[in-house]
Amino acid sequence: MDNFQYVNPTKLIFGKDQVKSLGQEVQNYGKRILLVYGGGSIKKNGLHVQVTDELNKLSDVEIVELSGVEPNPRLSTVNKGIQLIKENQLDFILAIGGGSVIDCAKAISVGALYEGDAWDIVTGKATPTSSIPLGTILTMAATGTEMNGNSVITNWEEKDKRGFSSIYTYPTFSILDPQNTYSVPKDQTVYGIVDLMSHVFEQYFHASDNAPLQERFGESILKTTLEVAPKLLEDLQNYENREVIMLNATFALNKVLTMGVQTDWATHMIEHAVSAVHDIPHGGGLAILFPHWMEFVAETKPEKVAQLGIRIFELDSTNGSMDQLAKETISKLSAFWTSLGAPTKLSDYDIDNKELDLMVERAMVGETIGSYVPLTKEDVRIILERAL
Amino acid sequence: MDNFQYVNPTKLIFGKDQVKSLGQEVQNYGKRILLVYGGGSIKKNGLHVQVTDELNKLSDVEIVELSGVEPNPRLSTVNKGIQLIKENQLDFILAIGGGSVIDCAKAISVGALYEGDAWDIVTGKATPTSSIPLGTILTMAATGTEMNGNSVITNWEEKDKRGFSSIYTYPTFSILDPQNTYSVPKDQTVYGIVDLMSHVFEQYFHASDNAPLQERFGESILKTTLEVAPKLLEDLQNYENREVIMLNATFALNKVLTMGVQTDWATHMIEHAVSAVHDIPHGGGLAILFPHWMEFVAETKPEKVAQLGIRIFELDSTNGSMDQLAKETISKLSAFWTSLGAPTKLSDYDIDNKELDLMVERAMVGETIGSYVPLTKEDVRIILERAL
Repeated sequence: MDNFQYVNPTKLIFGKDQVKSLGQEVQNYGKRILLVYGGGSIKKNGLHVQVTDELNKLSDVEIVELSGVEPNPRLSTVNKGIQLIKENQLDFILAIGGGSVIDCAKAISVGALYEGDAWDIVTGKATPTSSIPLGTILTMAATGTEMNGNSVITNWEEKDKRGFSSIYTYPTFSILDPQNTYSVPKDQTVYGIVDLMSHVFEQYFHASDNAPLQERFGESILKTTLEVAPKLLEDLQNYENREVIMLNATFALNKVLTMGVQTDWATHMIEHAVSAVHDIPHGGGLAILFPHWMEFVAETKPEKVAQLGIRIFELDSTNGSMDQLAKETISKLSAFWTSLGAPTKLSDYDIDNKELDLMVERAMVGETIGSYVPLTKEDVRIILERAL
Repeated sequence: MDNFQYVNPTKLIFGKDQVKSLGQEVQNYGKRILLVYGGGSIKKNGLHVQVTDELNKLSDVEIVELSGVEPNPRLSTVNKGIQLIKENQLDFILAIGGGSVIDCAKAISVGALYEGDAWDIVTGKATPTSSIPLGTILTMAATGTEMNGNSVITNWEEKDKRGFSSIYTYPTFSILDPQNTYSVPKDQTVYGIVDLMSHVFEQYFHASDNAPLQERFGESILKTTLEVAPKLLEDLQNYENREVIMLNATFALNKVLTMGVQTDWATHMIEHAVSAVHDIPHGGGLAILFPHWMEFVAETKPEKVAQLGIRIFELDSTNGSMDQLAKETISKLSAFWTSLGAPTKLSDYDIDNKELDLMVERAMVGETIGSYVPLTKEDVRIILERAL
């Protein structure tokens, strides 16, 4: 292991009807609340009423709403939220939604206490030193943002999508009621499953030595997901399966798997480049790209891919070379994602090789990307070509 | 899963020479420091000098020492610490040691801000509402106290040993340098390994449904320990093996495994009863008792014991009945602990059946103990008799 620090201050409040704890939690932080949410599905499914009812039980509470946060949350929306906080002297932010809504609320929480442009924080030009406290009510299992400091924001004017992370943007509490994910449709549920598994892969394929516990924790999430995901897709309103996927997604990116290891994240960078040029769902892009990334790295380093297959797909380690076991692992992974209904080729989204150069360019944030096998521009091109 | 809340505010600072981070951390909390440690081994191995050198780099620092904390920390020592804090108006506690030293420091940290007798807090008569901030430097991998709120204190006058847990007794930071465990002798290292594995068992054998991720996380700790422990005992100064065992012990009881499940802990209650009557090492007692507890519960509920064996000892699930698989699991576990040099029978400590009644009495804190299979007085007697 490399030396590391690990701390995660977020309080998880997990289970059926846990929104009832809301008032008790919020009163620790403030009474003037910015309520942040997305396209309004929480108005249809009753969650909005439930939340405001709980908040209004507190005395002297004031609620200001910021709705309409986009699926790729925009800097302009972040700025709108910052303005609402300043104008109304708000002291707490409550985000209700999935990754986009929570990421937007995180940028607001640090941007509101920063003198300059919030984009400085997103791009790393400025480092946050404080934040308006933030609580979340999660409505989708996928990104893990409910228990980490990560936020991804799009600057629409500059056609730029960037992520930042800070200890000041960990939610103070996150309420996870699996029932609040019942209305997530099948395709979005699949993308969430692909996303959470991909988060494990990005950390599992690290460039450090001697991290057997972290690897086995990752395998635990993957194995459990392999078992539960197909059952969940049979019945999207099954509490037991929703709860397991929800907890899996949280632990896939609450930084436990990152302890003491240098993680990879090349596939995410390539997917972000594809999404920036062609507007496709993140989970769909990952399902297409990850098997090709794995195939590429297995050509020089098959051992870890083989280990993954032996441990999560129960491949017989005595049956075949490392190369063969790695190939079998990748084919099992592809078959699993295909069985869930995930896309397999970029052409499924009508993407051809016309903008290949641009996608390669966008993916290369340095001379190489990733750390398990650092990828050059040429490597990224090969992976994208195979994914067409 | 049952509904649950999970939060763990402790910052882990893990790795080689991390004591260098000490000053930076301490300055966030205070300058008037109570330094708590045990029998003085940290003076022999140089850690005491290292720590005071780091602290003295801070300006205006004042250090008051409380040394000689006992292996089973006593209330009288806790009270001595509380007095030192009050007399010297100290604002931070730094504990350097294993479970006993840190547990003692935890009781001091809440006792110092409580008007009444600190024993009220230990027995649950009073609930802490604040604490003097506490940092730790861990010198032994075993109890997990470095990343939880638990503390066990002995009231020598009343011959009573009690534990409490509070959100206010989580360390603010814990420095875990595997090098600081190099000098732990072989027998203590084995007890630590048995202790951490036992912590997993107490949570793995829970009375709740549908917690597959938590169970696989537990298996991850066990499997990694099975792989690493024998290698560590071959060379007690091997950094890579010390670091894995150290991280395993922390995660075995930082409450991740407890999320959403009703845990057991009957074996710990029985062991505490044995230790209270006969002064034996906690890890040794657990090594003797756990196989017998498992055997007893497998007589009515063999499935989970069988699952454990299939997953961590790679038993062939198609080969044998649940009963047979459970028996095989227990025999593998016993063989593993025996191979490390752990004791197998109470008679190894010259304990016979003379004080059986007293031990049974002490173990029964209620009508039944444990939750996976609630044990009656008669059940506990059977387990103890088999363990003789």
